[in-house]
Amino acid sequence: MATAPLLADSELSPEAQAVFQDIRATRGSDFVNNFWRALANDPPLLKATWDRLKTVMVQGRPGGLDPLTRELVYLATSIANGCEYCAHSHTAAARAKGMTDAQYGEFLDVIAMAAQTNALATALQVPVDEAFSS
Amino acid sequence: MATAPLLADSELSPEAQAVFQDIRATRGSDFVNNFWRALANDPPLLKATWDRLKTVMVQGRPGGLDPLTRELVYLATSIANGCEYCAHSHTAAARAKGMTDAQYGEFLDVIAMAAQTNALATALQVPVDEAFSS
Amino acid sequence: MATAPLLADSELSPEAQAVFQDIRATRGSDFVNNFWRALANDPPLLKATWDRLKTVMVQGRPGGLDPLTRELVYLATSIANGCEYCAHSHTAAARAKGMTDAQYGEFLDVIAMAAQTNALATALQVPVDEAFSS
Amino acid sequence: MATAPLLADSELSPEAQAVFQDIRATRGSDFVNNFWRALANDPPLLKATWDRLKTVMVQGRPGGLDPLTRELVYLATSIANGCEYCAHSHTAAARAKGMTDAQYGEFLDVIAMAAQTNALATALQVPVDEAFSS
Amino acid sequence: MATAPLLADSELSPEAQAVFQDIRATRGSDFVNNFWRALANDPPLLKATWDRLKTVMVQGRPGGLDPLTRELVYLATSIANGCEYCAHSHTAAARAKGMTDAQYGEFLDVIAMAAQTNALATALQVPVDEAFSS
Amino acid sequence: MATAPLLADSELSPEAQAVFQDIRATRGSDFVNNFWRALANDPPLLKATWDRLKTVMVQGRPGGLDPLTRELVYLATSIANGCEYCAHSHTAAARAKGMTDAQYGEFLDVIAMAAQTNALATALQVPVDEAFSS
Repeated sequence: MATAPLLADSELSPEAQAVFQDIRATRGSDFVNNFWRALANDPPLLKATWDRLKTVMVQGRPGGLDPLTRELVYLATSIANGCEYCAHSHTAAARAKGMTDAQYGEFLDVIAMAAQTNALATALQVPVDEAFSS
Repeated sequence: MATAPLLADSELSPEAQAVFQDIRATRGSDFVNNFWRALANDPPLLKATWDRLKTVMVQGRPGGLDPLTRELVYLATSIANGCEYCAHSHTAAARAKGMTDAQYGEFLDVIAMAAQTNALATALQVPVDEAFSS
Repeated sequence: MATAPLLADSELSPEAQAVFQDIRATRGSDFVNNFWRALANDPPLLKATWDRLKTVMVQGRPGGLDPLTRELVYLATSIANGCEYCAHSHTAAARAKGMTDAQYGEFLDVIAMAAQTNALATALQVPVDEAFSS
Repeated sequence: MATAPLLADSELSPEAQAVFQDIRATRGSDFVNNFWRALANDPPLLKATWDRLKTVMVQGRPGGLDPLTRELVYLATSIANGCEYCAHSHTAAARAKGMTDAQYGEFLDVIAMAAQTNALATALQVPVDEAFSS
Repeated sequence: MATAPLLADSELSPEAQAVFQDIRATRGSDFVNNFWRALANDPPLLKATWDRLKTVMVQGRPGGLDPLTRELVYLATSIANGCEYCAHSHTAAARAKGMTDAQYGEFLDVIAMAAQTNALATALQVPVDEAFSS
Repeated sequence: MATAPLLADSELSPEAQAVFQDIRATRGSDFVNNFWRALANDPPLLKATWDRLKTVMVQGRPGGLDPLTRELVYLATSIANGCEYCAHSHTAAARAKGMTDAQYGEFLDVIAMAAQTNALATALQVPVDEAFSS
């Protein structure tokens, strides 16, 4: 039960239809997940979000990060932000991009480590070392 | 101004001294940053935190993630948790592990993308697709 | 499944009953939502919370913000705090106060924009401009 | 001390220069705040962020929210996300858009109210009422 | 540099003066910290916040929690919310209420433990056991 | 539907089995909750997490905090971090350790108070008093 209806293909406006077509073509799959079906209620936001996601996550940058690393950074952010939907969808995406069980285990090691030192550094209000601020 | 004094080397308890020695030996550097100097007020917590950090971030796992990827996941978590100290220290750490400007730019692309879709998915309370829950 | 039972009208203490009566009279509706039914387990907290909510959200201030703007600020906070219940209840409240689809679309534009620049400013640890601090 | 240098006008790449020119023209002011000077290290991200901000916050939508309401929603999100820079810059922006002391006082009333009920609803894990999920 | 001026005693409105008097009388100290000096710009919010704080933190409830436990719960919330001011002021308050170094060390143990299991439970999206939901 | 299968006792690796045995022996109960069944997919992380939890939450420190206070600090952190699973499991744990209704009511008083002053201090960007930073 989203706060807006999840639109079926038959309920899409022409602008939303065009975005869905691009999602399908880009991903090479007919499946369009609920996030886009909720956003489809607002075609301009749907389009702006998808266009940026495609640029950042599908195309990437020359000399940048590989697709799985991008996905893990996305997932780490999503978990720290407490986004339930995103934790599910980006864990699935990471697996689809080849994440192994050992890599997932190590990813969990790292976010648990980060969460605890984040808490400690905030609790102790540790001042930033001069060496870290060029 | 931390909530506890930052201990100088001369103020360390023997247990804290041993941890500092291991930090220096492991990192091959004499520099010990403020996070550890704040934790040094509580040697058992200092030791537990460093031992785990060494296992997770220095040693890593066979078949897991490379050191820079681990660092980027750590940094993404730290930023989403709003930890100022950690944003500084782990950006510096990522650079020390070879992060290029192009990689940092792409990292920023991804966390900004994630933050906005996290907000949208939470706002819309999008239900998790069955396809994502095996 | 809350962490405390949701009390039916017949289970209320006299103090909780009086609060429910005021909620109903103030809102002009017989419906009392689950948030209050969970809080009703603790009548002093129920009363303190409702009294303040009534002051802030129902009565408002002379020369302050209109009811829909207050509701959108409430909703933005709730989403950023990742409160599922609040995202639902305050989206419904905003609609009840006249929020149109275009307004909701623009609200989503803004929170997504804010979330991404929040992430970037925290990542980059941008120092506050002197111009912003009078 | 940001994690990247704050670029002076003389240090900008041509692409960043063009964005700064548009910021100045759009705002009718020569002042460019530190957020953009930090992002200027990465011209593609600078451009994507500014273009979207201009669309959402300067142009807005027909039939949407007025500029001050958008700014207050932005500010509420920034505060809940704990973004120090954004709290400063968007409070200043709200004042520049005409926010009065009474409006700011009421804004603070609302975010404090929201924060406390968010905490209570999360603590109690209140289930969403059917009435809120159409 | 707050987003509103910190008012000196000589700048207070009569309503704010009365609140400051009560703060001083209640705490048995002439010192009034910056939080109240910032809130003093808005006397109704100052009064509502202080009145509630006094009820919750100074008076407490019969059969409830002792003052130091209340302070530690307050501090834990403040740290998890990333509130720099609150981390400082409530660590100082806990010490003033008798928190020993051993207790502070154990407090840090617990928040670090909680932060890491929070991250793991959110990452893994662990479903709530039936045993936990009466 | 977790992002990893919840392992039944018959599906555990020997290393995970040993951890489950220790959980049961330590708690004096046959019940092992879902958190550990999800972590059991990764035995090294399961073991590291349980070992630390046992040290911090079961054994505690000499001269530290009593078990219920530790649990309330854990719960406060979990709620502020928006961890649904943890809110449920640690409310149940606090009750099992003797938390009364009056204590729970006061706990809720405090976290609601903290959440609202956290929001106000962050909104106003109140500078830390010199008195708080020794």
